[in-house]
Amino acid sequence: MLLCDIGNTTYHFLDKDKKYKYALDSFDPNSIDDKVYYICVEPTLKETLKQLDNWIDISQYIDINKYYSTMGIDRIVACEAIEEGVIIDAGSAITVDLVKDGVFKGGFIYPGTRAMRDTYKNISSALDYEFNYDLDTSKLPKNSTDAISYGYLKLLYSEVNSYNIPVILTGGDADLLKKLFTDAEVNEDLIFDGMKKLIETTA
Amino acid sequence: MLLCDIGNTTYHFLDKDKKYKYALDSFDPNSIDDKVYYICVEPTLKETLKQLDNWIDISQYIDINKYYSTMGIDRIVACEAIEEGVIIDAGSAITVDLVKDGVFKGGFIYPGTRAMRDTYKNISSALDYEFNYDLDTSKLPKNSTDAISYGYLKLLYSEVNSYNIPVILTGGDADLLKKLFTDAEVNEDLIFDGMKKLIETTA
Repeated sequence: MLLCDIGNTTYHFLDKDKKYKYALDSFDPNSIDDKVYYICVEPTLKETLKQLDNWIDISQYIDINKYYSTMGIDRIVACEAIEEGVIIDAGSAITVDLVKDGVFKGGFIYPGTRAMRDTYKNISSALDYEFNYDLDTSKLPKNSTDAISYGYLKLLYSEVNSYNIPVILTGGDADLLKKLFTDAEVNEDLIFDGMKKLIETTA
Repeated sequence: MLLCDIGNTTYHFLDKDKKYKYALDSFDPNSIDDKVYYICVEPTLKETLKQLDNWIDISQYIDINKYYSTMGIDRIVACEAIEEGVIIDAGSAITVDLVKDGVFKGGFIYPGTRAMRDTYKNISSALDYEFNYDLDTSKLPKNSTDAISYGYLKLLYSEVNSYNIPVILTGGDADLLKKLFTDAEVNEDLIFDGMKKLIETTA
């Protein structure tokens, strides 16, 4: 049995403890005979996979009424992984989702680090700085690097801390944000954890 | 006597109570004989204006040690206009500056509404929504429009409210943000107010 998290650009497999990735356009899902439990955000590919008996879409095991119709399946499955906490999934976008007593309480979407860096740069060359992840969040800045870093990072930091609940970081930029959320748990396998839990309890 | 706020694209004049604008590339500063007090963010034009006896750069009247070296002169002059408050200047960028007892306490820079709208759109077509300025800031969203609106607007709202000090809105998107900061004062002439104050007290 394999698990597969399919994003906009890659198939991300978990085979027991081994993880590997394939590019979306260079991998043929027919080449696998094993049973594959998957989630997929790519609509066309989703239709293709429906035709393959050994590929099983995990989204069918989810009670969508607990979430909302346009919410990404990756966010939903990450929420299913935990009973309590705020999940920060830091990728091209940063999604922040709150779960209490196993119930999704809502969430919001913030630009990812690269997107936000470009946003400042494109507004003005005077704002073309790298973010300072060692920012002192306790005082208002008096220099340009910290003025944009505070705008981006401290506002996220305050919002997440206001929930007063454990923080779980996942996604490609989890380690970067760990500098800010020093008490957070980093879990790169949160989506696979959610998939496993759904299979165990419902499949 | 005229006042002139020169940005990256326009000369913005105040002649007593009359305001008018000229494009940077189509107006000749030599065409004016009156005394003009100005601020200018455009480095090349600043050098040109230095040669004209009737154009007087107000930045010379400012004690720059109260601010920081790369801080925009428009932000500084807006701060000079008030004794106490948080100034939100909502243009291509949103600058937020705190002034207490006439002293600048620091500030930060956040992307402007158009820049941030584009940022979400460019991350994914699934995030291509207009912001909801009537957002309920009291609860975490469960729909896509509010998920991005909350990420952009509520985080700014919480930060500014945490200062517990009167809010003054200025800049082109002041009216938009007034929907969020319902108790804020809108002052489109904050920079001219600051210029007048500097002239009265030091010129």
